[in-house]
Amino acid sequence: MAVSPNSTQGESRRVHVREVGPRDGFQNEPETVPTAEKIRLIDALGRAGFKRIEVASFVRADVIPQLADGVEVLHGINVPEDVDRMVLVPNSKGLDNALRERAYFEEAAVFVSASQTHNKRNINRTVEETMADVRTMAPRILAEDLKLCAVVATSFGCPFEGKVQMERVLDLAEQFAEAGATEIGFGDTTGMCNPAYASRFFAAALERLPGVEVTAHFHNTRGQGLANAYAALEAGCTSFESSFGELGGCPVPAGSTGNIATEDLVSMFEEMGVDTGLDLGKVIEAAREAQATLGRKLTSHSIVAGPVIWAPSV
Amino acid sequence: MAVSPNSTQGESRRVHVREVGPRDGFQNEPETVPTAEKIRLIDALGRAGFKRIEVASFVRADVIPQLADGVEVLHGINVPEDVDRMVLVPNSKGLDNALRERAYFEEAAVFVSASQTHNKRNINRTVEETMADVRTMAPRILAEDLKLCAVVATSFGCPFEGKVQMERVLDLAEQFAEAGATEIGFGDTTGMCNPAYASRFFAAALERLPGVEVTAHFHNTRGQGLANAYAALEAGCTSFESSFGELGGCPVPAGSTGNIATEDLVSMFEEMGVDTGLDLGKVIEAAREAQATLGRKLTSHSIVAGPVIWAPSV
Repeated sequence: MAVSPNSTQGESRRVHVREVGPRDGFQNEPETVPTAEKIRLIDALGRAGFKRIEVASFVRADVIPQLADGVEVLHGINVPEDVDRMVLVPNSKGLDNALRERAYFEEAAVFVSASQTHNKRNINRTVEETMADVRTMAPRILAEDLKLCAVVATSFGCPFEGKVQMERVLDLAEQFAEAGATEIGFGDTTGMCNPAYASRFFAAALERLPGVEVTAHFHNTRGQGLANAYAALEAGCTSFESSFGELGGCPVPAGSTGNIATEDLVSMFEEMGVDTGLDLGKVIEAAREAQATLGRKLTSHSIVAGPVIWAPSV
Repeated sequence: MAVSPNSTQGESRRVHVREVGPRDGFQNEPETVPTAEKIRLIDALGRAGFKRIEVASFVRADVIPQLADGVEVLHGINVPEDVDRMVLVPNSKGLDNALRERAYFEEAAVFVSASQTHNKRNINRTVEETMADVRTMAPRILAEDLKLCAVVATSFGCPFEGKVQMERVLDLAEQFAEAGATEIGFGDTTGMCNPAYASRFFAAALERLPGVEVTAHFHNTRGQGLANAYAALEAGCTSFESSFGELGGCPVPAGSTGNIATEDLVSMFEEMGVDTGLDLGKVIEAAREAQATLGRKLTSHSIVAGPVIWAPSV
């Protein structure tokens, strides 16, 4: 494929894209994806060039049976040495279980919702209880020489409470940073962000969190996911999360799509001349494999259209 | 619905959105939409607040049978007085037929592809032949006190030729302007644009075409349609075209979506605090009616998710 003639020459910007489909995506599948299929798809993602993949969650198996095979997945996958495998740890009990598998991952993600109601409904604790547990978990994670990543969910709006103040979100982020998080992600859990706000938010977050990697996690609930990602990029954000095949995310309102599709995000960045370090063709191939495995039509665009082909065909 | 707390206060930008679904969308339906249904849906769009609607095309009925009922549609619709009804006129013969219905529309759209190969395959003429015919049609259109709108298709890339030079596109636009066009649209016919290029292109187009309304017509082929629209807006563009339900557009590559969905575009603008003059709820309702009429699941996002609701529900 020829280089896009529409790319931004001379800027040579570089971004990180974490693939979250194996956790965030598979968690939301109505039928549990077989362990062997999960392993096969994660290995395909590794071959596509991802250096960050969220692979498992140490949640209770009775709460999220779709991810009950997390340990088998960690043991079974075979990704390149330089891939950082992320696991989600919802609480100290989850961390106990995760640390038994310390050899199998490099990044631990903790999270809270900026909205009190969403946090309560999601994990049945107050925001303050969650943050107190984070302060307990953080030194244990850091002591194991793991990267501590933190996520603030409902950063751009809550389906229950509506408005979420930017100040509240950035205050939680600062608490995470003080606890030792070196990467903080901001999640648009139910797709309520818009690009004007994304621009202002990420400019403010980057200013408020020096030395911290600031990550954008947008959803495509109302089709604006890539517009928000572009706005965040222009505001200086260089770290993104997305899900191959547009899998997963929070289906609120019911039936709506969640995460932005990795292959659409990567297609946009690469066409802009922003280097993702990924092989777009292989990312699309992995998403098509997921589609075949799941046996239903996924909602990603590039999975159908393929990459832009710039070489003349006549 | 409460005003978005994420909107851009104090900017109070205003944009125009032309609804092109009744022409560009229905043209691409495999089964011809019954005339009465077309009329019912266009009237619903009128009630949603659109001031610009593309309602018909004066193409040969044997070439595009889906639009053979253009005259009946023009006669049957009942939209508010201040709505500008646009018809597409592909050539002088089409204009002959259109002008017999002069009382039933306010805007005539002529078009050319920036790419020679695409123009030839689309309308079986060279770009030069098309532009010569435009120069014949233009005074006839202007003499009827109609607004002359012109469209440059494949402005951001051609599926056959690949790269399309910005200079070539803007030169064609200047030719249109010299012929009397007061609005010129730039079409991303097969979804090859990216937001970095959209930003540069619309900044250049606005500078090169003083006094001309510059319109962005993006496709969502690779999911980047709204990102491109946001980039064009930020570059100063205030006129957009889109299609309710994400209907229509050019399905190249096969199976891919075409136009951006009007309700997703309007949702983005309104959440940003950019005034569209439209009732988003009614736009979504019209798209849902189209979905029911066509009997298949449409690909728009807001049709499923609905508008962002900011009022707290707890």
